Amino acid sequence: MFTTKRVPFTVVFPFAWRSVIIFLVYSIVICTLYSVLDWTFLAVPFVPVATIGTAVAFYVGFKSNSSYDRLWEARRIWGSITNASRSWGIMVLDYLSPQSAHDPAQVAELQQAKKELIYRHLAYITAIRVQLRQKPVWDLHHDVARDVVERIQAFKQCSLDKELSRFLSDSEIENLIKHPNPATILMRQQSAQLRQLRDEGYLSDFYHVDMERMLVEFYNQQGACERIKSFPFPRQYAFFSYVFTWLFIIVLPYGLLTEMAKVSGWHVWLTVPFYTVIAWVFNTMEIVGDTSENPFENSINDVPMTAICRNIEIDLRDMLGEANLPSRLQAVQNILM
Amino acid sequence: MFTTKRVPFTVVFPFAWRSVIIFLVYSIVICTLYSVLDWTFLAVPFVPVATIGTAVAFYVGFKSNSSYDRLWEARRIWGSITNASRSWGIMVLDYLSPQSAHDPAQVAELQQAKKELIYRHLAYITAIRVQLRQKPVWDLHHDVARDVVERIQAFKQCSLDKELSRFLSDSEIENLIKHPNPATILMRQQSAQLRQLRDEGYLSDFYHVDMERMLVEFYNQQGACERIKSFPFPRQYAFFSYVFTWLFIIVLPYGLLTEMAKVSGWHVWLTVPFYTVIAWVFNTMEIVGDTSENPFENSINDVPMTAICRNIEIDLRDMLGEANLPSRLQAVQNILM
Amino acid sequence: MFTTKRVPFTVVFPFAWRSVIIFLVYSIVICTLYSVLDWTFLAVPFVPVATIGTAVAFYVGFKSNSSYDRLWEARRIWGSITNASRSWGIMVLDYLSPQSAHDPAQVAELQQAKKELIYRHLAYITAIRVQLRQKPVWDLHHDVARDVVERIQAFKQCSLDKELSRFLSDSEIENLIKHPNPATILMRQQSAQLRQLRDEGYLSDFYHVDMERMLVEFYNQQGACERIKSFPFPRQYAFFSYVFTWLFIIVLPYGLLTEMAKVSGWHVWLTVPFYTVIAWVFNTMEIVGDTSENPFENSINDVPMTAICRNIEIDLRDMLGEANLPSRLQAVQNILM
Amino acid sequence: MFTTKRVPFTVVFPFAWRSVIIFLVYSIVICTLYSVLDWTFLAVPFVPVATIGTAVAFYVGFKSNSSYDRLWEARRIWGSITNASRSWGIMVLDYLSPQSAHDPAQVAELQQAKKELIYRHLAYITAIRVQLRQKPVWDLHHDVARDVVERIQAFKQCSLDKELSRFLSDSEIENLIKHPNPATILMRQQSAQLRQLRDEGYLSDFYHVDMERMLVEFYNQQGACERIKSFPFPRQYAFFSYVFTWLFIIVLPYGLLTEMAKVSGWHVWLTVPFYTVIAWVFNTMEIVGDTSENPFENSINDVPMTAICRNIEIDLRDMLGEANLPSRLQAVQNILM
Amino acid sequence: MFTTKRVPFTVVFPFAWRSVIIFLVYSIVICTLYSVLDWTFLAVPFVPVATIGTAVAFYVGFKSNSSYDRLWEARRIWGSITNASRSWGIMVLDYLSPQSAHDPAQVAELQQAKKELIYRHLAYITAIRVQLRQKPVWDLHHDVARDVVERIQAFKQCSLDKELSRFLSDSEIENLIKHPNPATILMRQQSAQLRQLRDEGYLSDFYHVDMERMLVEFYNQQGACERIKSFPFPRQYAFFSYVFTWLFIIVLPYGLLTEMAKVSGWHVWLTVPFYTVIAWVFNTMEIVGDTSENPFENSINDVPMTAICRNIEIDLRDMLGEANLPSRLQAVQNILM
Repeated sequence: MFTTKRVPFTVVFPFAWRSVIIFLVYSIVICTLYSVLDWTFLAVPFVPVATIGTAVAFYVGFKSNSSYDRLWEARRIWGSITNASRSWGIMVLDYLSPQSAHDPAQVAELQQAKKELIYRHLAYITAIRVQLRQKPVWDLHHDVARDVVERIQAFKQCSLDKELSRFLSDSEIENLIKHPNPATILMRQQSAQLRQLRDEGYLSDFYHVDMERMLVEFYNQQGACERIKSFPFPRQYAFFSYVFTWLFIIVLPYGLLTEMAKVSGWHVWLTVPFYTVIAWVFNTMEIVGDTSENPFENSINDVPMTAICRNIEIDLRDMLGEANLPSRLQAVQNILM
Repeated sequence: MFTTKRVPFTVVFPFAWRSVIIFLVYSIVICTLYSVLDWTFLAVPFVPVATIGTAVAFYVGFKSNSSYDRLWEARRIWGSITNASRSWGIMVLDYLSPQSAHDPAQVAELQQAKKELIYRHLAYITAIRVQLRQKPVWDLHHDVARDVVERIQAFKQCSLDKELSRFLSDSEIENLIKHPNPATILMRQQSAQLRQLRDEGYLSDFYHVDMERMLVEFYNQQGACERIKSFPFPRQYAFFSYVFTWLFIIVLPYGLLTEMAKVSGWHVWLTVPFYTVIAWVFNTMEIVGDTSENPFENSINDVPMTAICRNIEIDLRDMLGEANLPSRLQAVQNILM
Repeated sequence: MFTTKRVPFTVVFPFAWRSVIIFLVYSIVICTLYSVLDWTFLAVPFVPVATIGTAVAFYVGFKSNSSYDRLWEARRIWGSITNASRSWGIMVLDYLSPQSAHDPAQVAELQQAKKELIYRHLAYITAIRVQLRQKPVWDLHHDVARDVVERIQAFKQCSLDKELSRFLSDSEIENLIKHPNPATILMRQQSAQLRQLRDEGYLSDFYHVDMERMLVEFYNQQGACERIKSFPFPRQYAFFSYVFTWLFIIVLPYGLLTEMAKVSGWHVWLTVPFYTVIAWVFNTMEIVGDTSENPFENSINDVPMTAICRNIEIDLRDMLGEANLPSRLQAVQNILM
Repeated sequence: MFTTKRVPFTVVFPFAWRSVIIFLVYSIVICTLYSVLDWTFLAVPFVPVATIGTAVAFYVGFKSNSSYDRLWEARRIWGSITNASRSWGIMVLDYLSPQSAHDPAQVAELQQAKKELIYRHLAYITAIRVQLRQKPVWDLHHDVARDVVERIQAFKQCSLDKELSRFLSDSEIENLIKHPNPATILMRQQSAQLRQLRDEGYLSDFYHVDMERMLVEFYNQQGACERIKSFPFPRQYAFFSYVFTWLFIIVLPYGLLTEMAKVSGWHVWLTVPFYTVIAWVFNTMEIVGDTSENPFENSINDVPMTAICRNIEIDLRDMLGEANLPSRLQAVQNILM
Repeated sequence: MFTTKRVPFTVVFPFAWRSVIIFLVYSIVICTLYSVLDWTFLAVPFVPVATIGTAVAFYVGFKSNSSYDRLWEARRIWGSITNASRSWGIMVLDYLSPQSAHDPAQVAELQQAKKELIYRHLAYITAIRVQLRQKPVWDLHHDVARDVVERIQAFKQCSLDKELSRFLSDSEIENLIKHPNPATILMRQQSAQLRQLRDEGYLSDFYHVDMERMLVEFYNQQGACERIKSFPFPRQYAFFSYVFTWLFIIVLPYGLLTEMAKVSGWHVWLTVPFYTVIAWVFNTMEIVGDTSENPFENSINDVPMTAICRNIEIDLRDMLGEANLPSRLQAVQNILM
């Protein structure tokens, strides 16, 4: 997530420079042919250009809207994960109770179980986060939105076992990463421990069902993230948005030429700056839609999952009464991950 | 679901070639009549054409939006089926318990019941999938989006009894396929088994109601799929989108001609490439909306139900502790079903 | 619901012929006055016409969108009724149990109660359907969307008592139809029977509350249908959509005339076909919005409630183990009700 | 709520006459200055006018959409109140039971309690309705949408204590209206009575919680109504919609003049009718948005709360088995409140 | 929240004056160069300007829509907090009961506990409110929407400990504000007290779970507010809306000049007023979107959280039977916070 109100030129530049040069060269060539070599047949009426513009407007607008919806839904889900994690915290702490509050062995065992349930939960959200960011949706050579992030050392992502080592023992991790979907298995382990606690009498059936419902809630949120990740914005819409935009950009200078030539001969050269600006504007709209589409890609427009996971960790460990809480994550180069 | 970022020409081609040829021929004929035979009366002002364009823009846009919403809702439902299936998994494994944990007969019987509840669930999602893909919504001769899929051997769909044979015994299948809606009856059987387990004391009333609520959830999701399948995008909207688009395409060249002729005589021939591009753009928008409308049609834009069912199978059988899990489905020719 | 992909001419015709004749006559008169009588002052610039067009576009688009939303919501509700009915089926069959499974009198009594609960439910959905279709929202002389349906014998709707006679005894029906809202009372009777079954020990409190929650769900769905029926698309929006469309249609030929006359004298006569097509397009958009607005009107765009009720009947009676299930309803003249 | 398909002239007139006269006078003055006094500098190109039109289109459209959403949400909430009230009815009747069905004193006491719970509920919805309609959101001198209603005697609203006297005793009412929010206190009293019934053994904990959940539901619906009432459509959007519309209306005739003058000298006078029609169209769009914004204002576009409350009363008293049910409310002068 | 129907000039002025002066100076300079110095090359055709306008229209419209959605969602959440708070009130009062109603010590202790649970809840909503308003999202020098509010003495915000002192003891506050997120800890304390009350027998497991579910609900609402606050409208959309608007405003006068010059030489000077109006209109649209984006910023478009908190306080303390209730907050200078 980008975190300043104004996007500085240094961020816009890597997205723009390549295409702006293309627009400049393309329009200069056309103007030269028209003015110097007098290829007047290059002037084409603006009407067909504007007609293609209609299709562009609809598709680019639709793509931008849908990308934003995907991004916003992803953020909502992580908001729900935060809320449900806090709720998990108070349930673990206040639902579980020893059958006899005077048996110090039971009290200690229960205290240990509570810590396990909360630490395994922190492992769980970490596992979701790493799984979501691990593998890109598309294999692309150039993806500026991702390059910008990967150039920053602080955002280097560790492998799942490294990330989990703060919350789980080595043997648990070793066993976990054999499974095809470690996050799913972590929830399964939560459920098994709840069952065991209930069998041992720490938890009545009634509390048990209520806590199991929280696990169902976590599965729902995990699944919602995986759905956004594994079902990208449908290609039939996204790809033709790209195609129509470039069709428009290719055809545009011929139409502009005509309009400029109506004013005066040398006005034709104004086609170059105006064309470059307009083409940049439409190309930017396309790129904004395109880079906002996938919110879990280790890219500049990601949902700041690492920061959210850290906040949850602070809240839950604070509830456990731990003292040395980690600090909140800060944006690096105005990017919060 | 198409799975690469760029849609290659080989996929666009079967959708486009027929109409592009029509556009070329049509506009060449008109230009010839105008230029060679001097039928100047063919030139018509652009204003009435643009006015029809307004209706086209609204209807095509509306159809595209609604189709996308249908597709996305279908994907959400299958996401929810995934989530609920995982939740079903942990409930089956951790809610059911023998009255006496020391009776090996009971433990074995319960283990068998758990496996049945999970395998019948896998049969259930398979039955929904096959029922949804079995029968097309419309009987059409040419449907490119479906042809593309049916040409691929890997996507040949077996009959319901074949598909179910991995999860159910032959006698169960035989009995099942007599019913008008096998998926509905499978859930009914789950409910009956839960009731029996509760009567036998493996399940308290409280757990029983919670698990029955999951069955209600599955009925909701199954019903939501059937609703999308059996209530196509209303024809009054979809059909007139098609009609208005073609009206626009038919009228367009006469308007373009006028604009081109204003520049110079031979510019008239530019009508042909420009017309073909614009007509292709609008026709493509119509087709994109049209082929995204029905997400359970064995077509290129289907929700990848087979892959989702496989993922659920892997997760649930992993929870059961089975060893030889099947692998995830991969896209064939960039299509994931 | 119309059920073929292409809407045939025979269906479009009754909606269109009257207005198309008006458009033809109107534009011929104007062109004659202009060309023959040389009333050149009839030519008016296109700009004010286009400005009215903006208002038309917004209002017609808004009406179409909202009508579709109403239709789609209505379909969702009936989808939910289907799902909840299936859930009702498994709950009735698996929640109710005799206190002693060995007492044949109790078993028989319970079996009878289950059948009553399911048949009364089928009566309930029938009552909702008939109540919704009984009374039109508006008293109109000509409503083509309704005429098309009423001409078909198969869609003649019986009175409520006739329709209910398949599921309830005559005395029950007689008592029922005295109440102002029979469907509401049917649910009240379900609730009373549940209470009695619970008092007789067939149902624990816990199951009782869960089943009562299903009745609450049915009330929600019934109420949602009644809301759509009794709160039509607000007139301030719907009526002005109609007014602005016709204002546009009235003013349009004068503007077209001007544009055509710019090309050549006889081009003026092209106003007639172009005007007729454009006016038909805009009028069609208005009509499509207008006829989709009310989904429970016994009209061609109705939610197919009769077919849905039949499907529910098949599913529930199949669950009861009945043998001679009715068959699914088929479309008549491509209309499914 | 206006209840006929066509809005008659008598309803449109009071909204329109003032502004139509202004439009006529304004455009006649301008045309006179231009034609008679030859102030040709009044003609201004249409382009800047059209540019302002873009802003108008967006803002007026946005306001209309949002107003409709507010109105529709308000109607949904009252639909939910209807549904929840029916559910409240069956719960009160079937959840409460005497510990001993043979003690006539208990049976009578319980019967009385049921009646109280239902009548207090009718008092509750009445209180919400009166509270919502009591105080206008804005203090305005002229508000035609409200004037139209207030002129009708049948819609005179009584004070809260008068309206409640049909359902509560005088002493209860006297105590109630001292509180800052009587409706909230009525629900509090329902909760207190449930608690008492549970303490007296008429209600198990389990039923108690389920009925308390219905009270939570009623609080949610009441709060949703209060939210719509107390948070009007944000002024930054609503006010600038009004400003931009009038800016457009003020500037429009100068642009139209130019276009008309291009045709011929006397065509200039056609500016008057065309301007008046167009200005009326845009002003009407603004007014439709403006008058639909607040659905609880005692105005013509109100949600018909009085009629809905009456329907709930009929349903609940019918459930109680009462005989002399009131009749449904009918529209007066085509308005249903 | 601004509370009058018309926004007076005094509120619009501080937002507008700076830019209006810029627009005036800019256009006067251009007109002078064109007319006096005869730099006729400054006239540029309107077509490229209009093309940029398309992008502006989409982005500004999208930003306005999304900002409104954020604002409306924020208001919904606070509506839900109100509803849930009332529900919390009746639950605290009617779920908790002494084991023996005749033991005055128990009754008094319970009464004290009820008051604590309600006062701590009031502290909770106060903590959310202060936390949300404490820190601006962006560090900006000039933000008129915030300046307008900060100039009013009545809206000076106290520090969290001051605000909480009305509801909690000093020692509690001192302990509380050490935690990284005081609101989260307050809920944790509610949960702990419920647990204790349950252990002491004032609360059955069943009521306990139902009240704990309310705490989960409060966490959900708190989290939803924090999500809106911490995830501003994505910069890629918001910033380019600003950039495109200003690109349009910069380019606009050259296009207007051309159109004006077509009429007559001195009409060129009409560019100044028309340009200023149009630029102000588009700039206003941008600003309206921009200032509505963040609903918890101590700015003029804030959700009126202070007033809502006060209303909740009145309702809950009224339920407790307290006599000297505070009065509702009134708008100051037409602003309600």
